Amino acid sequence: MYKVTVIGSGNWGSVAAKLIASNTIKLPSFHDEVRMWVFEEKLPSGEKLTDVINKTNENVKYLPGVKLGKNVVADPDLVNAVKDANMLVFVTPHQFMEGICKRLAGKIRADAEGISLIKGMEVKKEGPSMISTLITKQLGINCSVLMGANIANEIAMEKFSEATVGYNQNKSAADRWVQLFCTPYFNVTSVEDVEGVELCGTLKNVVAIAAGFVDGLEMGNNTKAAIMRIGLKEMMAFSKMWFPSVKDSTFFESCGVADLITTCMGGRNRKVADAYARNGGKRSFEELEAEMLQGQKLQGVLTAQEVHEVLSDRGWLHIFPLFSAVHAISIGHLPPSAIVKISEEKPRHVQLLSSL
Amino acid sequence: MYKVTVIGSGNWGSVAAKLIASNTIKLPSFHDEVRMWVFEEKLPSGEKLTDVINKTNENVKYLPGVKLGKNVVADPDLVNAVKDANMLVFVTPHQFMEGICKRLAGKIRADAEGISLIKGMEVKKEGPSMISTLITKQLGINCSVLMGANIANEIAMEKFSEATVGYNQNKSAADRWVQLFCTPYFNVTSVEDVEGVELCGTLKNVVAIAAGFVDGLEMGNNTKAAIMRIGLKEMMAFSKMWFPSVKDSTFFESCGVADLITTCMGGRNRKVADAYARNGGKRSFEELEAEMLQGQKLQGVLTAQEVHEVLSDRGWLHIFPLFSAVHAISIGHLPPSAIVKISEEKPRHVQLLSSL
Repeated sequence: MYKVTVIGSGNWGSVAAKLIASNTIKLPSFHDEVRMWVFEEKLPSGEKLTDVINKTNENVKYLPGVKLGKNVVADPDLVNAVKDANMLVFVTPHQFMEGICKRLAGKIRADAEGISLIKGMEVKKEGPSMISTLITKQLGINCSVLMGANIANEIAMEKFSEATVGYNQNKSAADRWVQLFCTPYFNVTSVEDVEGVELCGTLKNVVAIAAGFVDGLEMGNNTKAAIMRIGLKEMMAFSKMWFPSVKDSTFFESCGVADLITTCMGGRNRKVADAYARNGGKRSFEELEAEMLQGQKLQGVLTAQEVHEVLSDRGWLHIFPLFSAVHAISIGHLPPSAIVKISEEKPRHVQLLSSL
Repeated sequence: MYKVTVIGSGNWGSVAAKLIASNTIKLPSFHDEVRMWVFEEKLPSGEKLTDVINKTNENVKYLPGVKLGKNVVADPDLVNAVKDANMLVFVTPHQFMEGICKRLAGKIRADAEGISLIKGMEVKKEGPSMISTLITKQLGINCSVLMGANIANEIAMEKFSEATVGYNQNKSAADRWVQLFCTPYFNVTSVEDVEGVELCGTLKNVVAIAAGFVDGLEMGNNTKAAIMRIGLKEMMAFSKMWFPSVKDSTFFESCGVADLITTCMGGRNRKVADAYARNGGKRSFEELEAEMLQGQKLQGVLTAQEVHEVLSDRGWLHIFPLFSAVHAISIGHLPPSAIVKISEEKPRHVQLLSSL
């Protein structure tokens, strides 16, 4: 019997718990109960968030108006939440994972499998290091990832969507994750390419910043599509340079081209970058973020910084003109219009990339 | 010395003439003059269109306000227009090509090369037949294609864009076409995959109809991205089933993913399909076309019909649920919401496609 715990209870974590709970209650090989670790908060009413979730069956703070399923149990105690689980779903902001892993080390079942829904990466001297790798190293468990064109609120409303599970060798674990997440309105497929899938989820945010600049400059649909395409090629090249096992075909999955489209059309990275370009780069990203996102930080700007670090360390900046330009623009070293200039002036690099 | 004639003078043909003329005047291996065959019309002023183009340097009817270059010469006589040319650029509505080829047979230079900018295909018993093949067969010349995320008016305004030349064996001809079209704001690359490039340009219109249905149903960004991705996979599978030489990498070029994005975001196929779905399929495509497009026909609905014919002939409809549903919806056999249902109900076929 498989027992699932969701570690994280934000917007996406709550939707994940809802999807999972609808399956565990139907499928005989899973325990009905899905435990969800909730970082405890006091609500304005004075009640504890976990108590309200367990009473109303709703995450009133992060996914109001949506029933999670009666078999979802909120638990404020991280160690208690995972103690019986052999399927661990990680879905927290990426900067919290290091601390969470430290608290979990030695406290989880020996036969546990993990899956990460977290976007982001760590920068190491030797190159980018993925969150799934962090989990594997710190907890000693196999870890898959799930990424895709997944706007949480749309899935909460049961609108049709797809996702991709990326796994590493363990196909039967991947099949189980697919079974756990798949519903008629959420179509999940798996590919044996954990790094490819995870890097798609991470790098698309950098391309979304570029797409936002194009929107802010009012360059039109052609230019935006061209910039998205060049970004997709740089995502592929970046992934394959560090992880030669990454497959081109992964970029045709939901985690690749579909997530890129969703993120470049909507999403906060695109939105703030649009505002940045409309202001001619005169108001900083920090300022616009504070104004537009109530203190949330933009993943894309952070990731562009991380990508810049690993590329400059290797002397590879010139091979990635779009990634490099996004970083240079976001820190004010280049004007927003540079996002188009790089494509006009360096066709040779783009062609070099095309041949990878 | 190479001498270029553009056959066609609509919106896209006029932009093509402008791009080409800016290069022939600079590059020593090309004659400066670019001849453009214009289907003669009397303007409301009583003047002939060709006279006005040659006097004002503007195609006042199809690309008003844009100077084509003084070295563009409009010619109402098709045979005269091509007689000295060894580079022929075909850019007319696809239904006129058969007749044009008949008039040109035996009247062109023996060393001529062709390139087609035309979207569409012919349906033959043995499968789809491309316009470049029609030109090759009827005129006995080698024919490349140029496709991409190319909204004509945006390129006319010199906004950055990309395009893909697809060629068949003759790399030096392809290089010449790239040289002829490439400008700082129009970045052209070539791939040895004429059928792949041409089918991208043709089949994307079917996916755009599907995307329009999703918009009209207000299903949101996730669903639209998912449908676009499934459409892209069907484009690949369809192309490879008939032309095994088609390369996956072609779909990462401007003609592939970028053109698909542009067409599914803007464009008239998307727009009319959106209106069709909003009306619950109660007003026919013919009616909406007449009202919204001043008598123009939707390429995507015609192509979906052609795709349906060749697929049903082979018994392959079930392998292409999205293409099949677009046709069934557009002729009123299924409701617009079927575009999402096919993805929910037939994940196995989608997975089968994924493995192609």
